[in-house]
Amino acid sequence: MKQPLHIIKIGGNVIDDSEKLSAFLRNFSGIKEPKILIHGGGKIATELAEKMDIPQQMIDGRRVTDAETLKLITMVYGGLISKNIVAALSANGDTAIGLSGADANSVLANKRPANPIDFGFVGDVAAVNSENIDKILQAGFVPVFCAITHDGNGQLLNTNADTMASAIATAMSGNYESFLYYCFEKKGVLEDVENEDSIIPEINPSNYEKLKEEGKIFQGMIPKLDNAFSAIQKGVRAVHILQAEDLSSLILTKRAYGTRITA
Amino acid sequence: MKQPLHIIKIGGNVIDDSEKLSAFLRNFSGIKEPKILIHGGGKIATELAEKMDIPQQMIDGRRVTDAETLKLITMVYGGLISKNIVAALSANGDTAIGLSGADANSVLANKRPANPIDFGFVGDVAAVNSENIDKILQAGFVPVFCAITHDGNGQLLNTNADTMASAIATAMSGNYESFLYYCFEKKGVLEDVENEDSIIPEINPSNYEKLKEEGKIFQGMIPKLDNAFSAIQKGVRAVHILQAEDLSSLILTKRAYGTRITA
Repeated sequence: MKQPLHIIKIGGNVIDDSEKLSAFLRNFSGIKEPKILIHGGGKIATELAEKMDIPQQMIDGRRVTDAETLKLITMVYGGLISKNIVAALSANGDTAIGLSGADANSVLANKRPANPIDFGFVGDVAAVNSENIDKILQAGFVPVFCAITHDGNGQLLNTNADTMASAIATAMSGNYESFLYYCFEKKGVLEDVENEDSIIPEINPSNYEKLKEEGKIFQGMIPKLDNAFSAIQKGVRAVHILQAEDLSSLILTKRAYGTRITA
Repeated sequence: MKQPLHIIKIGGNVIDDSEKLSAFLRNFSGIKEPKILIHGGGKIATELAEKMDIPQQMIDGRRVTDAETLKLITMVYGGLISKNIVAALSANGDTAIGLSGADANSVLANKRPANPIDFGFVGDVAAVNSENIDKILQAGFVPVFCAITHDGNGQLLNTNADTMASAIATAMSGNYESFLYYCFEKKGVLEDVENEDSIIPEINPSNYEKLKEEGKIFQGMIPKLDNAFSAIQKGVRAVHILQAEDLSSLILTKRAYGTRITA
């Protein structure tokens, strides 16, 4: 039987709240099975862009990454956030390593074509080097990824953290029984976004279509669920979408928390 | 016989010049024996501090690291510079990992006491985890260190890159025949700072005292040489101080370049 591997993505809202982040990282350190953390960016990059007079352009809710913005996110995601998470995990007893996709040549991406929309230095995952990531795990280290990749020719690229988590979980499922967790501010996928108790406990391909047709899934959740189903179809054992606070309870007690996505 | 390990420190002036940096990294990638890179910071942090209105205070030529300045250098050294070096090395065929001392819990430091001068979040190296650094080397990766450490309780600390290089070379000399290289803009340690041809080819403890007494060593070189002798006395095989451009010629041809410091 393959060993379990937990791939956990935390969103920007946890990053932005230092108390929430500390609590989350303590819980994360409580997980003793092999694990990988992927972190989003939060508001720090946007605030810094304002301070530095780097105009930020959003198209369809996605950040256009010009050369100055790429520098900025490399500083904030790859430096400030990554190194502080690593130092905090170390204080909790984990031996962590902060990585981008360029580190250990772990995640290669293709720069997104400039047509129809030029998003600048944005990359779509092309290949995950599961062998190198596994070497880091086998050495007893906890990989902590920011959502930056590279093209193999020296160019860093801004990448969607949800997609990166899904791609890493998929690639690692060859050697591990991999579980993917999307941690965010809600208790799970909600039928009614105003009602925290309306958690949909399980989504599978058949009720997913029905829920979408009935308009019961919040538009913003759809890319995350598509990433989840993509991972499931390619070998990931299960995907959970849940509140960051519930992560360690879910893993340690195996009780139901949030929304479970299955094949 | 122990395997050779090359520990190479590059200074800020190479970092600041993108063409010099590319050329240096190509040469560095030509070294096929195990190797570790430690990079300084350069002017980018100072320029960014101006842009962000973070006042910088220097005492005796050393930067006082308040909380905002620590964030800044974590972004610049640990993020921007580190990840771009790693991506460039990857394009050259190396599989590099950008690290701070917090990563892999590799370099622990003590915050410098606030008396007599409060330098803020500055750390002096307390312990190097040579076992963890060796795991990274054994996995076939090239460690790339920025000069940031941690105190083991979650606090990052700004650390002198020369000292960090010396401490890492010393710690690794238990398992390797370790060689330390300080690469900078001059051809070596010069008798006359105005004359590029006045390279002192070798410094050992006996001529060091004499050269110092005669005032033939530029003041700014003394901390670097003290670090070099400290490394030699604790097991490092040799220390070379040389121009960045000469590094790979020195290692590949074994001919003399720059200044060699020996016991």
